[in-house]
Amino acid sequence: MRWMRFSRPGRPGTPLGQVEGDTVRVFEGDLFDQPRPTGEQLPLAGLTFAPPCRPGKIVGLWNNFRAAADRNGWAHPAEPLYFLKSPGSAAAHEQAIPAPPPEVGRVAYEGELAVVIGRSARRVTLEEAAGCIFGYTCANDLTAIELLHRDASFPQWTRAKSFDGFAAFGPWIETDFDPAGGTLRTLVGGRERQNYALADMFFAPAELVWRLSQDMTLAPGDLILCGTSLGVLPMKPGTTVEVVIEGLGTLRNVYG
Amino acid sequence: MRWMRFSRPGRPGTPLGQVEGDTVRVFEGDLFDQPRPTGEQLPLAGLTFAPPCRPGKIVGLWNNFRAAADRNGWAHPAEPLYFLKSPGSAAAHEQAIPAPPPEVGRVAYEGELAVVIGRSARRVTLEEAAGCIFGYTCANDLTAIELLHRDASFPQWTRAKSFDGFAAFGPWIETDFDPAGGTLRTLVGGRERQNYALADMFFAPAELVWRLSQDMTLAPGDLILCGTSLGVLPMKPGTTVEVVIEGLGTLRNVYG
Repeated sequence: MRWMRFSRPGRPGTPLGQVEGDTVRVFEGDLFDQPRPTGEQLPLAGLTFAPPCRPGKIVGLWNNFRAAADRNGWAHPAEPLYFLKSPGSAAAHEQAIPAPPPEVGRVAYEGELAVVIGRSARRVTLEEAAGCIFGYTCANDLTAIELLHRDASFPQWTRAKSFDGFAAFGPWIETDFDPAGGTLRTLVGGRERQNYALADMFFAPAELVWRLSQDMTLAPGDLILCGTSLGVLPMKPGTTVEVVIEGLGTLRNVYG
Repeated sequence: MRWMRFSRPGRPGTPLGQVEGDTVRVFEGDLFDQPRPTGEQLPLAGLTFAPPCRPGKIVGLWNNFRAAADRNGWAHPAEPLYFLKSPGSAAAHEQAIPAPPPEVGRVAYEGELAVVIGRSARRVTLEEAAGCIFGYTCANDLTAIELLHRDASFPQWTRAKSFDGFAAFGPWIETDFDPAGGTLRTLVGGRERQNYALADMFFAPAELVWRLSQDMTLAPGDLILCGTSLGVLPMKPGTTVEVVIEGLGTLRNVYG
């Protein structure tokens, strides 16, 4: 099942929609608490995408793919290494992502799988963790790469990752996706720059939910960006980035 | 003016209250958008404190006090060095703060001044920044100090600071407080462990709002914890910590 949020010209709000082919069935209420169909059906074309949920937390992973760790000479992590992005950095499919001021320096895309939490998770078991996952979506975890290590004493992960629009995700949440066999490709200006197997993660989605829930309570709508693999590069303003996960969807944004 | 939120036994919700001496005038609506008095007045004694606002973001500062930087040999920062704490780490005055599992290691208190944002701030000027501050509160920015550098490749700031209850703040938000002349004291088991001038910050509250708003949009209810100074120590379970700011209030929590 594919859940989106959308807006329409001249209409307030961002209702929920269930996407079936080219058609959207409109729902009202809370995506994570029995939303109700309004009976309305709309063509998908002509709707403006909104972020498919409103995450209270956007967790990002560093160094979660074997291929990237091995190529870059990073140690295999003993536990998930994560940071938080500002919830205000959320951006929808096809939403323009503004470039930060020039003094911030270069900005890179990172194509990622994102986990959407559907049920509150506090110190759950690995088995319970799987049941706390509502679905998956595509994400672009933008990063101001020159900020990261500009201060020698303090790596600025949150800051480099939290500019408005730096957490693009969508186009929708797919509840029936199995990441174990999936592949993620990132197309930059139409050219493939990333192509990696999601199974190459050190910590797969359910294990991330299990381990993170030992530290902090995860809430419905929270996002976990599972980290990226090889092929990350800075972007020029005006670049179109597409994050494509077969069986899930394509997230497309223009940067700058 | 002092704004709190509270709960009462057998009554749902956490209404707003304006504290005047021993009395609380009850309000309904949004603290940051013209809350309305209900006409009800209650004695402060007997109310259970809730966090006085619901921050979407809790920003924490590292290395924002000259005395601590000089004593520890840290370079004076050229710009605010910050991280995000999970919004789920919020805890109220007099709320018990659970100790994380033993494998997390030692946990330290950090007495801090917290800024409460009252108005959306995106790339504001320094003059505008002051007008975006709604008020101030006391905070205890708890930190699992052994986690911070447990992984040599990635300092775990967010994780070490985001356990449930690790952002205690309150008891209320004071809208008429001027931090420039203020002093913060932290009493641990009744013994003074921190006593520092708020004027010793590298980046004072309005400058923090100004600079942070260049990176990310600050929203009403967001908290900025201004960092701490000398005197931070780990706590034993069962320790009472009081963060006292003259003219503002006393935040009291039992840890563990």
